[in-house]
Amino acid sequence: MKPVSGIDRRTLLSGLALLPALSGGLLAASAQGQNVTPGAVLPSWNDGSAKRAIFDFVQSTTNRSSPSHVPLEDRIAVFDQDGTLWVEHPIYTQVMYCLDRVPGVVAAKPELKDVEPFKTVMSGDREAISKLTLKDLEEVLAATLTGMSVEDFDAGVKKWIETARDPRWKRPYIELVYQPMLETLHYLRDNGYKTYIVTGGGQDFVRVYSQQVYGIPPEQVVGTAGGTKFGYDHDGKPFLTKEPKLLLNDDKAGKPEGIHLMIGRRPYAAFGNSTGDREMLEWTGAGAGLRLKMLVLHDDAKREYAYGPAQGLPDSKVGTFTPALYDEAKSRGWIVISMKNDWKRIFSIDQFD
Amino acid sequence: MKPVSGIDRRTLLSGLALLPALSGGLLAASAQGQNVTPGAVLPSWNDGSAKRAIFDFVQSTTNRSSPSHVPLEDRIAVFDQDGTLWVEHPIYTQVMYCLDRVPGVVAAKPELKDVEPFKTVMSGDREAISKLTLKDLEEVLAATLTGMSVEDFDAGVKKWIETARDPRWKRPYIELVYQPMLETLHYLRDNGYKTYIVTGGGQDFVRVYSQQVYGIPPEQVVGTAGGTKFGYDHDGKPFLTKEPKLLLNDDKAGKPEGIHLMIGRRPYAAFGNSTGDREMLEWTGAGAGLRLKMLVLHDDAKREYAYGPAQGLPDSKVGTFTPALYDEAKSRGWIVISMKNDWKRIFSIDQFD
Repeated sequence: MKPVSGIDRRTLLSGLALLPALSGGLLAASAQGQNVTPGAVLPSWNDGSAKRAIFDFVQSTTNRSSPSHVPLEDRIAVFDQDGTLWVEHPIYTQVMYCLDRVPGVVAAKPELKDVEPFKTVMSGDREAISKLTLKDLEEVLAATLTGMSVEDFDAGVKKWIETARDPRWKRPYIELVYQPMLETLHYLRDNGYKTYIVTGGGQDFVRVYSQQVYGIPPEQVVGTAGGTKFGYDHDGKPFLTKEPKLLLNDDKAGKPEGIHLMIGRRPYAAFGNSTGDREMLEWTGAGAGLRLKMLVLHDDAKREYAYGPAQGLPDSKVGTFTPALYDEAKSRGWIVISMKNDWKRIFSIDQFD
Repeated sequence: MKPVSGIDRRTLLSGLALLPALSGGLLAASAQGQNVTPGAVLPSWNDGSAKRAIFDFVQSTTNRSSPSHVPLEDRIAVFDQDGTLWVEHPIYTQVMYCLDRVPGVVAAKPELKDVEPFKTVMSGDREAISKLTLKDLEEVLAATLTGMSVEDFDAGVKKWIETARDPRWKRPYIELVYQPMLETLHYLRDNGYKTYIVTGGGQDFVRVYSQQVYGIPPEQVVGTAGGTKFGYDHDGKPFLTKEPKLLLNDDKAGKPEGIHLMIGRRPYAAFGNSTGDREMLEWTGAGAGLRLKMLVLHDDAKREYAYGPAQGLPDSKVGTFTPALYDEAKSRGWIVISMKNDWKRIFSIDQFD
């Protein structure tokens, strides 16, 4: 994926996106939707039930004569990020950022050099780092994600995200987004849906690149969020400092709670890939009318990764997709997306077969 | 003000609002802004520095050849609600709602009948009720704003807000919105600004009527917010319960903190009316480029209310506008709006002089 200037792309997209909305809203007898085919709007999807479900959902909810029609202002779609929009394996990109920030933190506070878990991170010993406990990682996260002004944090993430590369693909992480999901985001937006990211990752972290990478503005990113503290510098200029105080743990039950806090209404479509997304899909599905609930299954070891442990796939430390979640999906009519079978390509850089 | 159906109004407005955005974004040489006069877009404002400041700000920030041009996606404007968009005197509308809810709460929990402060509220003795302490009121607020599902809460507010009337004007509270501020909201939106409410009032409360009354969708309301708790009913259907746990106290320093949490970027325009809005205006003004900061002064005892105590106006329990705030406004170049002098009419129901 070639990142486009956020400004130009958004101006263009918001303009184009409104044309169908305008015609749909003002002209009941418009030709909206006519001559649109699944292949034209979702070119990286193979034919099958997943592609058909997305297409049928959009057609039904935007057709004013359909019993499933959804008014323009109610069209909300939510997407988990890690494992749903981009690669999360073997470890979340944000954790890589935090580990990369440790030398900077230690330089500012040399007394941490000989203190665990910083000592292990500084050693560069990948084997030892991969064995850090959750409590160790939380300490690293707190030290690298809080204590600075919101502007300094944004600048640090912006610099890192443009240069850091995934070790397997040797490409920037922001190029490892799933092309079929980008097409889904665009297709929904072109039909008046407001697209949100609802992530267990850090809200402030994802907001730095969400516009550039997904076409989603910062205010439409809901994530795990800490508090900030308002204060003044020595010139009397106000600033906000990121505090180690958790306001929203946007995972599992925290996802519908975060949606209520940040959006205030129930989505019509929800996309996830793990047990962390279960409650978000349940909450979406409990609304009246047609709702789209989809889960990405990572079953493509060759082109990406294979993990579950649903469907006999290997177990995973991140993005767990349990057999119980698979059963719930089947019983509630949620659609499971097979990366291997449903996606013609994974990344925009991939060639079609 | 005659409330229009939220759906139709929004569909129409979002369509109309995009036309200048489209032309401004895609056609650099468009005629955007030509032939627009302050009187045409702000008809309820008298000529003067306040009206001129709003007009000049919009013209400068939307003109692509201006050094103050603001890209479309950065156009964020924030508005306090109580005392800035609608009447707050002598007591916040939401407090009236909570007092009106007490009989319902007592009916469900009869043991509260003889317990203060519920006993006093049930007595209907206005004199005694007006003397309740802040702690008493907080107890009333907690009992009437939490403990129910988010849907039950919304339904209760919706029913009340359509029928409850202000004792002085004998009109629904939602008709007591300031016509000049509605025009300001529309003018900003027509020029690509995303308008937000940033209120010390309850986020869930204001979201119920924000679309209908202000044309602002629920997700663009930032307010004092409590947590919710995800759970399942006996049929396994998920629901969210409003909890008495404060997540965001959206007043004073909490306003810039709330803006960061809910929007994630600094506004270009901020409107308030009291010491509770001071930090929000400071935070807005500390950004680079042209920023509009305005404070409504309630100096019109005849058409609305007069309170300060700035400028020799009487002191007030709500919406305090101190002499220190007035001095800060003058020294920082914030514009003070005189309701008496700057507004041709207060409400849409008022006749022009």
